[in-house]
Amino acid sequence: MSERVNVAVDAMGGDNAPGEVVKGAVEAVCEDQRVKVFLVGREPVLKEELKKYTYDGERLEVVHASEVIETGEPPVMAIRSKKDSSIVKCMNLVKEGSCDAMVSAGSTGAVLVGGQVIVGRIKGVERPPLAPLIPTVNGICLLLDCGANVDAKPSQLLQFAKIGSIYMESVIGVKNPKVGLVNIGVEEEKGNALTRETYPLLKNCPEINFVGNIEARDIPLGVADVLVCEAFAGNIVLKMLEGVSGALVSKIKTGMMSSLRSKIGALLVKPALKKTLKGFSTEEYGGAPLLGLKGLVVKTHGSSKAIEIKHSILQCIAFQEQNINEKIKEQMILGD
Amino acid sequence: MSERVNVAVDAMGGDNAPGEVVKGAVEAVCEDQRVKVFLVGREPVLKEELKKYTYDGERLEVVHASEVIETGEPPVMAIRSKKDSSIVKCMNLVKEGSCDAMVSAGSTGAVLVGGQVIVGRIKGVERPPLAPLIPTVNGICLLLDCGANVDAKPSQLLQFAKIGSIYMESVIGVKNPKVGLVNIGVEEEKGNALTRETYPLLKNCPEINFVGNIEARDIPLGVADVLVCEAFAGNIVLKMLEGVSGALVSKIKTGMMSSLRSKIGALLVKPALKKTLKGFSTEEYGGAPLLGLKGLVVKTHGSSKAIEIKHSILQCIAFQEQNINEKIKEQMILGD
Repeated sequence: MSERVNVAVDAMGGDNAPGEVVKGAVEAVCEDQRVKVFLVGREPVLKEELKKYTYDGERLEVVHASEVIETGEPPVMAIRSKKDSSIVKCMNLVKEGSCDAMVSAGSTGAVLVGGQVIVGRIKGVERPPLAPLIPTVNGICLLLDCGANVDAKPSQLLQFAKIGSIYMESVIGVKNPKVGLVNIGVEEEKGNALTRETYPLLKNCPEINFVGNIEARDIPLGVADVLVCEAFAGNIVLKMLEGVSGALVSKIKTGMMSSLRSKIGALLVKPALKKTLKGFSTEEYGGAPLLGLKGLVVKTHGSSKAIEIKHSILQCIAFQEQNINEKIKEQMILGD
Repeated sequence: MSERVNVAVDAMGGDNAPGEVVKGAVEAVCEDQRVKVFLVGREPVLKEELKKYTYDGERLEVVHASEVIETGEPPVMAIRSKKDSSIVKCMNLVKEGSCDAMVSAGSTGAVLVGGQVIVGRIKGVERPPLAPLIPTVNGICLLLDCGANVDAKPSQLLQFAKIGSIYMESVIGVKNPKVGLVNIGVEEEKGNALTRETYPLLKNCPEINFVGNIEARDIPLGVADVLVCEAFAGNIVLKMLEGVSGALVSKIKTGMMSSLRSKIGALLVKPALKKTLKGFSTEEYGGAPLLGLKGLVVKTHGSSKAIEIKHSILQCIAFQEQNINEKIKEQMILGD
């Protein structure tokens, strides 16, 4: 039998905290026996919320944290000064080994900074990338880096490729994952200084399955399993995916309400449409892991509801059971 | 009465040349009396194509060009060596003043290089940006730069903002257009070195209406009329817009065919849906002008059909009649 996976959850982070976070934590605990959640935040508030639910009390523990880091606060300062915040307490639980992983829907900046400063990097990892899974027409792919490090170097992008391949193979189960470099043309010489220098590094790396440059237009078609890019570009890819999907769906819904004929049609297509759009939603895939740290740190969307919190917690199980961090360590030693 | 606008059209460029290009040129000539088209390419082929249509022969002239620049050719070399190519001939027609503008669906690289080398920049313009109009939920906005210059400097982004504002105000008719800087966060200090240095330049420029940083997620919502960014980022924005729309629409169509109920519904919503999606298509807005050159150079999508060629030709009329280049010249002198 596998050991229990301990996950610290920032109960105060995100637009829907603590209500949805508590709900998601309870759902995760009820769904999978392997997980134990440490719900970190203001104890009285959390205990009150928890009264709403029935769950295995052995696998859900409240850890008091008196402070909350707000989204607008400068991250470095917040991590330093708010020692009793829910984020810092979660990080410390991971650092000291009480927890294997943590999940937060709170300040991205604070999670990124805290991850590096408190949890710490695996030796050899230059910059831990934030790596969300994004939907494609035929599945999912891992996009990294997506917000942790702007102005990255070619050697860092090579590390992203290696780390991302390990994640896709071990956690998601994709054999020999295809690695693509996000670029503005498919030819080797296309792009900016960064992509032109990165291409040969990826091409000559025996540990990855490099398939070449990928144009943004082809990303939603699922042509690669691991997409490597610098964080500014990655953030634009992720946010355009969310923004265009959202805008288009709302436009389609409005369009369908434009006549009686289309209104009747809309009623008939609704179930099928809902199912289709669900498969193309970022919510289904839990949070984005910050990879290459000594413990697992998962950042979920600020607007996360219970379902995303639950998925984020559950994804920590595979990560832990597959010994991802051991595999990353081995790769980093190999790369030296 | 306004003078005639002479437009050179590269009849050999793009995936659907010469058939769709010739068709689009004929449609433009038939739709607007103000335009005269010079169809540049292999004369026998073009004359054969033209036999299919009825049009005012006074306003559609064939100019022979024996060579064609292919998409894969290195642009600089192609422009230098293929003096009798349709692209180079179009550019020369603009340079010598026989034409006010040119339109090509051919090699983007060759059009960008030829524009700078043959047509030439307006004095003071550091780098002419490629500036497509992109659809938003409530209209359109101009995205620049979108492919001409990767690794741009802050001073160049400031020029893009000024040039883009002139275009949106004079050609599209948007009063006091809102200028946004594409970034990965809304706060002034967010982003990479380029955006952090560009922000104060835009903020302190009295000639533009700067509204701050725009996250990619908000681009489809139409929060700005002019979106300024470096070409690598701009290309990703444009290609993600195309890719996500395309993938989502195809997924929705497949989803609607999944049951008898939804198939019937699909028949009923089809007209409304078609109308909605048309408003969100990049095809409706003609090509992307390469701004800041001594004549107007318009690059349309390689997969352009007649409708896009027609729109690209017709957009040259407003550009010419509004004296855009004179206005850009004035701004450049002001900026010194």
